[in-house]
Amino acid sequence: MTTEPHQKTAVEPLSNAYRLLNPGVVVLVSVGDDKADNLFSVAWNMPLKRDPALVALLIGKRHYSWPFIEKTGEFGVNIPDATIMNAVLGAGRIHGSEVEDKFAHVGLHRQEASKIKAPLVLEAVANMECKVSKIVDMDSSVLVIGEVLEAVVAAQHFDKNHWVFENGLQLIHHLGGG
Amino acid sequence: MTTEPHQKTAVEPLSNAYRLLNPGVVVLVSVGDDKADNLFSVAWNMPLKRDPALVALLIGKRHYSWPFIEKTGEFGVNIPDATIMNAVLGAGRIHGSEVEDKFAHVGLHRQEASKIKAPLVLEAVANMECKVSKIVDMDSSVLVIGEVLEAVVAAQHFDKNHWVFENGLQLIHHLGGG
Repeated sequence: MTTEPHQKTAVEPLSNAYRLLNPGVVVLVSVGDDKADNLFSVAWNMPLKRDPALVALLIGKRHYSWPFIEKTGEFGVNIPDATIMNAVLGAGRIHGSEVEDKFAHVGLHRQEASKIKAPLVLEAVANMECKVSKIVDMDSSVLVIGEVLEAVVAAQHFDKNHWVFENGLQLIHHLGGG
Repeated sequence: MTTEPHQKTAVEPLSNAYRLLNPGVVVLVSVGDDKADNLFSVAWNMPLKRDPALVALLIGKRHYSWPFIEKTGEFGVNIPDATIMNAVLGAGRIHGSEVEDKFAHVGLHRQEASKIKAPLVLEAVANMECKVSKIVDMDSSVLVIGEVLEAVVAAQHFDKNHWVFENGLQLIHHLGGG
């Protein structure tokens, strides 16, 4: 290995160190019960297990959607692509309590899920229906671990169980900051 | 929003659903005590908190490096770029018990850490020194949550606390599979 060592400087403050681990794919999480629903963007997520399929999401306890998940034990994970970037930005910017219909506010449509009550996002390139498997308390936030009960994906963008980027698919990554 | 809805098909088996959440940036985790050290690649990782800076990694319990982390309570997170891709692939392919010196085997060099005993990877574009903050049992694996004690990054690739890709930086993403 003849690679020249990099000149490195400290990341200061350390509260910016998380940005080194980005970018992961941004998801839209959908929640709902019989009375209301909501939609919000989550950049901090990851797969946790193949079989049974588990995923993890970090959610602030003050988040409008957290009580929905706590109460229903369910949530949808919707993967947007760049064609609905504005909706993703919009969903992240506005608190669920500020608008009557977050889906309509950001210009997205609900799609009925097959195994959970929460709606899914019709325009997403993939949808996962999840039930809460474990919750890890992280003080001001919770790490929600969900089991994937059902997953669907746009056929032209996923082949042989891999994302296909040749058709112009652009997933959304968050590099840190607002 | 006039986006045409996607034609979606089910992901089967569900054990492939995790691939929808990729790609996250691949890291090399370094561990060590007074007697030995090791290096392995982790695709399933994410930031968990800004302040104090927390990161999460998923590690198999059978992994050669897990006892090091369990015993020392420390680990390094090293972010490789595409220039050392072969080393990253090599580190993921070979079990720590099979080689005497994993660093040498994959052609990377140790760099002394300032706050932990585990070595860091000299050639990485960024290094984080972490101490274990919490361990979440996931049956065959553990979710290791670490506090970042120190983080350094190649100055030409990180500006105003964001990765800069203009200088040809390519981080490594794992799309699933072997």
